[in-house]
Amino acid sequence: MKLSNRILNMQFSPIRKLAPYAAEAKKRGTKVYHLNIGQPDVLTPDIFFKAISNFKENVLKYTESQGMDALQESFIEYYKKWGTEFAKDELLVTNGGSEAIMLTFMTLCDPGDEILSPEPFYTNYNGFAQVASAKMVPYLTKAEDGFHLPSKEVIESKITDKTRALMISNPGNPTGTVYTEEELRMLGDIAKEHDLFLIADEVYREFVYDGLKYTSALTLKDIEDRVIIVDSISKRYSACGARIGLVASKNKNLIHNIMKLCQSRLCVPTVEQIGAAALKDTPESYFIETRKEYQKRRDILMDGLKKIPGVVCQKPTGAFYIVAKLPVPDAEDFAKYLLTEFNKDGKTVMVAPAGGFYATPGLGKDEVRISYCLNCDDLKDAMDLLKVAIEEYQKVIK
Amino acid sequence: MKLSNRILNMQFSPIRKLAPYAAEAKKRGTKVYHLNIGQPDVLTPDIFFKAISNFKENVLKYTESQGMDALQESFIEYYKKWGTEFAKDELLVTNGGSEAIMLTFMTLCDPGDEILSPEPFYTNYNGFAQVASAKMVPYLTKAEDGFHLPSKEVIESKITDKTRALMISNPGNPTGTVYTEEELRMLGDIAKEHDLFLIADEVYREFVYDGLKYTSALTLKDIEDRVIIVDSISKRYSACGARIGLVASKNKNLIHNIMKLCQSRLCVPTVEQIGAAALKDTPESYFIETRKEYQKRRDILMDGLKKIPGVVCQKPTGAFYIVAKLPVPDAEDFAKYLLTEFNKDGKTVMVAPAGGFYATPGLGKDEVRISYCLNCDDLKDAMDLLKVAIEEYQKVIK
Repeated sequence: MKLSNRILNMQFSPIRKLAPYAAEAKKRGTKVYHLNIGQPDVLTPDIFFKAISNFKENVLKYTESQGMDALQESFIEYYKKWGTEFAKDELLVTNGGSEAIMLTFMTLCDPGDEILSPEPFYTNYNGFAQVASAKMVPYLTKAEDGFHLPSKEVIESKITDKTRALMISNPGNPTGTVYTEEELRMLGDIAKEHDLFLIADEVYREFVYDGLKYTSALTLKDIEDRVIIVDSISKRYSACGARIGLVASKNKNLIHNIMKLCQSRLCVPTVEQIGAAALKDTPESYFIETRKEYQKRRDILMDGLKKIPGVVCQKPTGAFYIVAKLPVPDAEDFAKYLLTEFNKDGKTVMVAPAGGFYATPGLGKDEVRISYCLNCDDLKDAMDLLKVAIEEYQKVIK
Repeated sequence: MKLSNRILNMQFSPIRKLAPYAAEAKKRGTKVYHLNIGQPDVLTPDIFFKAISNFKENVLKYTESQGMDALQESFIEYYKKWGTEFAKDELLVTNGGSEAIMLTFMTLCDPGDEILSPEPFYTNYNGFAQVASAKMVPYLTKAEDGFHLPSKEVIESKITDKTRALMISNPGNPTGTVYTEEELRMLGDIAKEHDLFLIADEVYREFVYDGLKYTSALTLKDIEDRVIIVDSISKRYSACGARIGLVASKNKNLIHNIMKLCQSRLCVPTVEQIGAAALKDTPESYFIETRKEYQKRRDILMDGLKKIPGVVCQKPTGAFYIVAKLPVPDAEDFAKYLLTEFNKDGKTVMVAPAGGFYATPGLGKDEVRISYCLNCDDLKDAMDLLKVAIEEYQKVIK
């Protein structure tokens, strides 16, 4: 019984595949600090839970394939803050940002088509591309440059007649990089000159530090029919488990076509939509506080990394991740070591090997993605453990 | 800006594409009886809502990609009633039965591969196949035969080296047909002799009437590693809006590979999983009452159809659908007429043209799928309206 080459060639999530080792470690009584996953500890706004507990229906019915009216309206109101007035036929509610990306890839790509993206990129882009029998075509960005974009020429050199879209995550997962207005403009120009879409994954839009200006792809008004926004409430409101996402574009024909895919899976869960719709009343102070907290954590992370000889990275300015080169030959082996052999005072840390965030085989072998979703005390402790673990590991592999 | 051929060739849901006309009719003040959609009016068990309102967490977190422990256990307990003991690594929780099918197709099929199924079949199978760049290959079943399967030879004649699986919906959507033990055995034999998987969509397993014996694909123990069960709580517990489904198989390697896709979309919504996990305590009386109610409705539907001259159909024995040939040349045109022109005492009905349930172009042009999810009084009224509408329409198109 043959399985598809698509699935056989697909990798397990580098973020999740070490989970069984973590489970084993916990069974042994070891405390595991999760630096591997972007699961915020910030409280979900209480209005989400209130809305759900107020839900009074006798029959849990299907909703509209494009999302419930109230939730669409909630998103429309949210985007006004960002200077864009979306109509209802310009956005579709999805099962998380994940489905938003998957549906977009399927709508743009036939088998063999290509999506251009800086690497390292969010590892699941690879999976979504494989699902669509499409291909992520990477151009390299480097830890030494803070993972900012290369020149226009370098990016253009990767374009073929199979290229359908440019894609960015901004602020970047896994890099934490916030692209400049000039970088956005450059991508907009490339999209226009080469007749491409620009897919902007902006789920970390609120997570920008140091008072930096954030430039959304929504500001590229001259190419707005080429811009596809992928969004999610997961990180913004610490509501990862709601799996409520969004695909939005001023290109109504595009949205009209994606709607076919939305219809085929009928709708997004009702109860979670009701909770999500209520989030539009989240006070601005929530975002300010959250941003402050993450900036503090980012600083703790950087202090910790600076103390480890041989680590290479630039200070990230957005999201809550960093990709750092570690002084180890194989980060995946090291990550396993952390969960299976290392243990200090009954504690260890879990990191995501960064190899899976690259499309080019062999790249990122000595890099890890570290998420700073832990509270400050735990994060400090985790960084101290990481330092000790690297020293021990270097002895072990000698 | 080119969209994919995949999406351009995809149809809008025949169940949902007439929705804008229905919305218009409602705006004009017309009452629309929905015979088009399988949205039950039966109450969702109260334990679902209780579990949700008891949900007390401050942070709405991601859950496991395979589904929460409690929900997996709940499903395992459910299947024991059906004589099968599943282990946790033999089932994955999905976003409705829809995602279960989509993930299965992606795992079995590379572009161009084929899934064999009796037609008419659930229209979204086509969409899911297109998503996987695969193809539904149909063999014909007929209203006159109650849509039972043709001979082994007929089915085998459709097998090519691209065929990856046989697929059935049992009880059938849209046909309401319940396959016999002999039919199941025949499919099992074909799967074994031709090295194929057998995908059984059994979301209507509880909806079997007239005291008929139901044969699940789970009973084919000799080919259990070829059997893939697609399931959902949507109809069983009248919880369509929860979007909680399942893919289960004794083939652990298959499930292990589908898990890659589950990881890429991270997880299924948390709150709905908590509600769904509680459903295992639904008393048996709930199913008995529901079955009784639907059997009554099925009889009302059949009485209504018998009164319309020229209608061809057999009494269905399962699910809550029937495919009937109407004495009209173009059922889609008739369905539009119902929503745009017809109106008796301020009321009309909505049906799903059956053409979209066939893979062979041109088939089912004079057929509709009728769902009997309305209460008995409404259903009687709707059938009377349908009779009048057909008479009026026949005059109009003359």
